[in-house]
Amino acid sequence: MSDFSFEILASDGAARRGRLHTAHGTVETPAFMPVGTAATVKAMMPESVRATGAEIILGNTYHLMIRPTAERIHHLGGLHKFMHWDGPILTDSGGYQVMSLAGLRKMTEEGVTFRSHIDGSKHRLTPEDSMHIQHLLGSTITMALDECTPYPIDKLGADTSMQLSMRWAKRSRDAWVGRLGYGVYGIAQGSTFADLREESIRALEPMDFHGIAVGGLAVGEGQEMMFKTLDDCEPHLPQHKPRYLMGVGKPLDLVGAVRRGIDQFDCVLPTRSGRTGQAFTWRGPINMRNARHQDDPRPIDEDCSCPACHNYSRAYIRHLHRADEMLGAMLLSWHNIQHYQDLMARMRSAIEAGAFADFEAGVVAGYAQGDIDPL
Amino acid sequence: MSDFSFEILASDGAARRGRLHTAHGTVETPAFMPVGTAATVKAMMPESVRATGAEIILGNTYHLMIRPTAERIHHLGGLHKFMHWDGPILTDSGGYQVMSLAGLRKMTEEGVTFRSHIDGSKHRLTPEDSMHIQHLLGSTITMALDECTPYPIDKLGADTSMQLSMRWAKRSRDAWVGRLGYGVYGIAQGSTFADLREESIRALEPMDFHGIAVGGLAVGEGQEMMFKTLDDCEPHLPQHKPRYLMGVGKPLDLVGAVRRGIDQFDCVLPTRSGRTGQAFTWRGPINMRNARHQDDPRPIDEDCSCPACHNYSRAYIRHLHRADEMLGAMLLSWHNIQHYQDLMARMRSAIEAGAFADFEAGVVAGYAQGDIDPL
Repeated sequence: MSDFSFEILASDGAARRGRLHTAHGTVETPAFMPVGTAATVKAMMPESVRATGAEIILGNTYHLMIRPTAERIHHLGGLHKFMHWDGPILTDSGGYQVMSLAGLRKMTEEGVTFRSHIDGSKHRLTPEDSMHIQHLLGSTITMALDECTPYPIDKLGADTSMQLSMRWAKRSRDAWVGRLGYGVYGIAQGSTFADLREESIRALEPMDFHGIAVGGLAVGEGQEMMFKTLDDCEPHLPQHKPRYLMGVGKPLDLVGAVRRGIDQFDCVLPTRSGRTGQAFTWRGPINMRNARHQDDPRPIDEDCSCPACHNYSRAYIRHLHRADEMLGAMLLSWHNIQHYQDLMARMRSAIEAGAFADFEAGVVAGYAQGDIDPL
Repeated sequence: MSDFSFEILASDGAARRGRLHTAHGTVETPAFMPVGTAATVKAMMPESVRATGAEIILGNTYHLMIRPTAERIHHLGGLHKFMHWDGPILTDSGGYQVMSLAGLRKMTEEGVTFRSHIDGSKHRLTPEDSMHIQHLLGSTITMALDECTPYPIDKLGADTSMQLSMRWAKRSRDAWVGRLGYGVYGIAQGSTFADLREESIRALEPMDFHGIAVGGLAVGEGQEMMFKTLDDCEPHLPQHKPRYLMGVGKPLDLVGAVRRGIDQFDCVLPTRSGRTGQAFTWRGPINMRNARHQDDPRPIDEDCSCPACHNYSRAYIRHLHRADEMLGAMLLSWHNIQHYQDLMARMRSAIEAGAFADFEAGVVAGYAQGDIDPL
């Protein structure tokens, strides 16, 4: 087995077509990582996740450290075995969910203490704790602990938060225990301030992370500001390392971010939407609970190979969601993950063909069409 | 294609090993039919249902007539196409759920009017309506409309109710529109009164149904009384027709009923238990939410071939159920259906081998053992 590495196979403008080599297999990039919060991609069998073309998934350290606990997963052979996924797994640091979910948080230079939103139990998360927990989980890609800077924030606040994240990044990198084919990523912060973003990226450089994440986006700043910030970051990001935009996003967010040089993404949107009845199509998202589908024998998207589109009508999918049947969430989660993976595959082909701009224009035009006419 | 028919391949005492030929394929009997209430076997892909060895499923007329409606399913190509199940489907008559779920019921000789428990809409169900609805659904096996006699009841009440069901059976049989390879079953009532059961079975004989169901059991009378009633019925049931015990049951109910000559079963128990955390094993049912499983790397049942047992630990299944993750219901429903299908397959082999009594004793002894010791 070779060590964790990243190669760039082709590029088109700032967009990159790459390949990540890990202890658990390779990942073609740009890649979308379905989110397996509590050691399961919600409503999906892992075989189904794999069948969509997904090669890497994400696990949430916060959820797993609370329940069933990292120690338990470790004793059971690690997260891969626990959840029956033998491909690469990236875990976040836990910091983001501590801020968004946990109660009674107290943050210091050392780290953060909090109470579980599940049972009120008290926990501590320092950079060293986060590295240890992710090590116990057996994460293929470990994320440094950072503070996801809230938005909006003034420059002083953004600077202070970013500097803390940089100190935590150094402690994370120092505490990470390497294994052949495993990697650790640092996270750039700095909110929407170009100079802070540049400073953060430069601060991470000597820490020798295997990849760099752009954090603190998709937190309310809007697509335009997110793209501007990515434009600000791009020239400073190391060319030879994978770049991961955390928590993004909608399909057109992904396309715009790939154009700006991003290689990896994660987002709960396809699975969460699958549970609430929203389907992604090449003509934009549609609400499968809508009455217009109730007699429609056509698939969600003619241009999709997933089982939901291959074997079932819109009328049936609508019926399942109206009746709150689990199969509705199962089929629509599968479809949405398939749509995201197909989108990534098409982006990879477009970069290889040097035709990303045309591809992007085509996707944007397709999404703008809106749903097919009713019968 | 040949017409709907039933052949008996072997027998052992009253237990029969048979084969049902239908327009949608053959069914090896004794057979367990997973319940697909609202056009889905809850939390299961139809491919997964099939993978357990299930050859026939059940649909609920009451649920489907209310939502999405039989007319809608008919226009979409019938229930088989709608739910992507190309094997045989048996539908009940709707009568049972009208009595257990619907509001503002009014029963007359003609039929029953009621309000939907979903939206309060008013509906009518006569024997003729039920036949028409099941025809629209495209049911492989249509069930006559009956009144599921409540329990306990005095003899006069049981007699009156049974007589009504017999008149409705005749009207159902007359209204049923035959198609090559499709069948219609009559339902014997009479509560726990041996002479009423005999009278009911004799009343159905001239109506020339393709199969006979024993209805009005598993309604609170207990296993001993159910078995006694099956003993009362058995000598009078036609030898050459399939016999279906409706709504039964637990694994040992099935074994005892097969010994008493029953060929078909349906029950929500395996899928409902799959959602609430109960797993069926060859050592009896176990509660997967119990803390004793939290560190247990062993499968639910070593002697099971389903994906839940093949790929996951008890610790993981427990975690999923504690975290209310859909995959918990998906895996455990699959396992439970697999257990039921394996039980049926072993019963079929035991009858062929003329060893049913030994088999039954072995199963009873196994179930009595209780769960494996904790590690």
